[in-house]
Amino acid sequence: MSKNLTSRAEDYSKWYNELVVKADLAENSAVRGCMVIKPYGYAIWEKMQAELDRMFKETGHQNAYFPLFVPKSLFEAEEKNAEGFAKECAVVTHYRLQNDPDNPGKLRVDPEAKLEEELVVRPTSEAIIWNTYKGWIQSYRDLPILINQWANVVRWEMRTRLFLRTAEFLWQEGHTAHATKAEALVEAEQMNDVYAEFAQNFMAIPVIKGVKTESERFAGAIETYCIEALMQDGKALQAGTSHFLGQNFAKAFDVKFTNNEGKLDYVWATSWGVSTRLVGALIMTHSDDKGLVLPPNLAPFQVVIVPIFKTDEQFEVISDKAESIIKELKSLGVSCKYDKRTTHRPGAKFAQHELQGVPLRIAIGPKDLENNTVELARRDTLTKEIVQIDDIASTIKDLLEVIQDELFTKAKNFRDEHTTEVEDFETFKKVLETKTGFISAHWDGTAETEQRIKELTKATIRCIPMSNKMEEGTCVYSGKPSTQRVLFAKAY
Amino acid sequence: MSKNLTSRAEDYSKWYNELVVKADLAENSAVRGCMVIKPYGYAIWEKMQAELDRMFKETGHQNAYFPLFVPKSLFEAEEKNAEGFAKECAVVTHYRLQNDPDNPGKLRVDPEAKLEEELVVRPTSEAIIWNTYKGWIQSYRDLPILINQWANVVRWEMRTRLFLRTAEFLWQEGHTAHATKAEALVEAEQMNDVYAEFAQNFMAIPVIKGVKTESERFAGAIETYCIEALMQDGKALQAGTSHFLGQNFAKAFDVKFTNNEGKLDYVWATSWGVSTRLVGALIMTHSDDKGLVLPPNLAPFQVVIVPIFKTDEQFEVISDKAESIIKELKSLGVSCKYDKRTTHRPGAKFAQHELQGVPLRIAIGPKDLENNTVELARRDTLTKEIVQIDDIASTIKDLLEVIQDELFTKAKNFRDEHTTEVEDFETFKKVLETKTGFISAHWDGTAETEQRIKELTKATIRCIPMSNKMEEGTCVYSGKPSTQRVLFAKAY
Ligand SMILES: [Zn+2]
Ligand SMILES: [Zn+2]
Repeated sequence: MSKNLTSRAEDYSKWYNELVVKADLAENSAVRGCMVIKPYGYAIWEKMQAELDRMFKETGHQNAYFPLFVPKSLFEAEEKNAEGFAKECAVVTHYRLQNDPDNPGKLRVDPEAKLEEELVVRPTSEAIIWNTYKGWIQSYRDLPILINQWANVVRWEMRTRLFLRTAEFLWQEGHTAHATKAEALVEAEQMNDVYAEFAQNFMAIPVIKGVKTESERFAGAIETYCIEALMQDGKALQAGTSHFLGQNFAKAFDVKFTNNEGKLDYVWATSWGVSTRLVGALIMTHSDDKGLVLPPNLAPFQVVIVPIFKTDEQFEVISDKAESIIKELKSLGVSCKYDKRTTHRPGAKFAQHELQGVPLRIAIGPKDLENNTVELARRDTLTKEIVQIDDIASTIKDLLEVIQDELFTKAKNFRDEHTTEVEDFETFKKVLETKTGFISAHWDGTAETEQRIKELTKATIRCIPMSNKMEEGTCVYSGKPSTQRVLFAKAY
Repeated sequence: MSKNLTSRAEDYSKWYNELVVKADLAENSAVRGCMVIKPYGYAIWEKMQAELDRMFKETGHQNAYFPLFVPKSLFEAEEKNAEGFAKECAVVTHYRLQNDPDNPGKLRVDPEAKLEEELVVRPTSEAIIWNTYKGWIQSYRDLPILINQWANVVRWEMRTRLFLRTAEFLWQEGHTAHATKAEALVEAEQMNDVYAEFAQNFMAIPVIKGVKTESERFAGAIETYCIEALMQDGKALQAGTSHFLGQNFAKAFDVKFTNNEGKLDYVWATSWGVSTRLVGALIMTHSDDKGLVLPPNLAPFQVVIVPIFKTDEQFEVISDKAESIIKELKSLGVSCKYDKRTTHRPGAKFAQHELQGVPLRIAIGPKDLENNTVELARRDTLTKEIVQIDDIASTIKDLLEVIQDELFTKAKNFRDEHTTEVEDFETFKKVLETKTGFISAHWDGTAETEQRIKELTKATIRCIPMSNKMEEGTCVYSGKPSTQRVLFAKAY
């Protein structure tokens, strides 16, 4: 159905772009920087949404929906946040089109339908949400507010890549309001933990939990927690962030509450989000030169059955077997598709399912009917075996768990092997260029050093790991004293 | 927790607006015409989404996602569609803000960041989707394409009302592509049937399936199927539409395919959608002067338990009972909330749950413990009874089904009582103003008569019912011959 992919070794970036398109995940649209998420790619996102939504609800959050547009005067209220996003805002200035008198059949913007105040298409929703929360909060009894929103946002990026960086993307954004600083900090850290748990248990991606340095923080945050993953090309990817916003937004929007001592105070805030970028992370962590490799916990369907037959009679008997396997699998909670298309030959189907990363493939041919067997093929290892049909469903269920675990272990081993403790800047540069990956090094804590290292090497501080132990040392660049290591890497 | 609502008899429109806000469903936002959907309102929408999504998938559809923006040149390609929506389009003209040199701390649109081509915020997605489908379709083997999208859309309405008509709203839009006209027609009608089934079985709203007259059709459609419901004030509400688009969009975007005889032909299209407007329909069909009444199949939680106690000891025993009831209910698939808030007295809780339309309320007090009973109250009938606790869960499960059925029957009786066959225009006007509701009358089939009746009475033709039988008659306005009745009403 399609030519081979460029190999990862040959051109990782090209491999990624080709894979996304050929595996029918997404494609570029007629709108600069905006993608079309195709059904198979969207099905993966739906799987992610379902698990995350469950986890958010289990931790006490409810969904709601706030406007797509933010009036400019609200957008600019929290200055740091506004400054951080101003350069990538799509702006609505008019609310009507009219027939173009100079071009029959064409439309133009109606100059008389200019908005009094421009509307920013949300790049993130703190402003519109905190302006709303103002009306909801009077007393500590109204707190906490624990709300999440599933939405589209727009950030006018100049260089875009499918899933990883697009002008419009889909995400969830949690926005919570609290009576105390301590409670808000617990919330921000809790949600980062939820993201880490999701990444590890569902995406099979090992992540490092940490906090961002000041220069890498979300615009308007006091502290940004994050989870950082390592891709196969040795570059890091920020897979989720959770922000402790302090009282910044409460002050910008004048959101005060009466505490339980009867005194007025500003409300404490958090926000946290993950996006369709996670699909990019998933691809780049597990996939290979043959195409997508999906962890069973997020595969749109976990098993595919391909019939191999010459006669209608064979097809009927094989189909009966297939239907009974599907039924058994369903009762065990395993999703399975029977690919009985007559428009494609088995070889083409095999190639497509390999490209699309279906975790397990069952092939049933005439010989299997004689022997009461099937051929069972693993996508991750590309291994095949002949297995007895009798307790195939429980075999498969167990095997899917094995695959899920092994994908995680493989990714973790890769990450661990590509995490290097470095003591001097020459080694730093060499490791970054040759071995790649995370570099764990001492840093003097200044933004100047951080900036200088970035200029010289393109590596940024991905995070200060939560699990850090204090350790005396000297900054890898400046030689000044330092108390802990931080993680550097080139990043997506 | 809140003052009484204005009664429906006093001011239906005011009653609706108050109910939406006081029951915590939605509120107006800082953005003209855009609403904030609050958690309780959003939870109802999520219930709707879950059922509809299941029904779409059962009928073979997959979800995908297309860009929020439509370049103006694509938007104008299908002329009728463009003409229909041009007057209500939000238009993005710039992609950057900058510091305003005249107002320190403020931002302004960067005049140098003007887009070469303006982007329309989608009012509906036919244009961007058919421009995409062009790349997906070469042969009949690529058809049908059966895709749905859950998304936000923007139509710059001048007069807005929460849920019923907002500048931004949430909806789903199905967009399908077919090899034959017949198949597309079947699809369009099938999806209208799905909407009818959803409205009747989940929303408990009786609907009339029909087709729109030419002047009421979707801009760009050849035929618009719809479901029409009747609200308590005697006005109709269009609850869903499904369009047979013919080859209009295929021609506008040059989407051809090779059919199974090897000949090139344009692709046939449908689109279909329902929106958050359904929440408005739900409210206006069932609710009363005490607040919201929810059909059990769409209630965020179907049962609430309120403990009534004086001592901590009583509270503990009641809580044990409550937890065991909740567990039993859960095993039967019934959702239940235990309202053990200490910040509110039982009376305030009763009032809130009544206002928010929780179908069943259980109160457990000290006397109930002695007698092994609970007080069970129905929201729809406002009746209470003392019931034995022993098989309370199955009693409740049955009762929820009874409530669901009775709400539908009540709404259907109302609708039937407010559907009047009329033979002359004087009666038409009188019925419309006094009895209100649907008027079934003969119409001569001309747009002129339709328009004249609308000008004189504000009534429009809601639809030509699918179930119509042919019947000789004379037009209620012009006296000209007619072969069937159509349904007129004032409408939302
Ligand atoms: Zn980090
Ligand atoms: Zn109709």
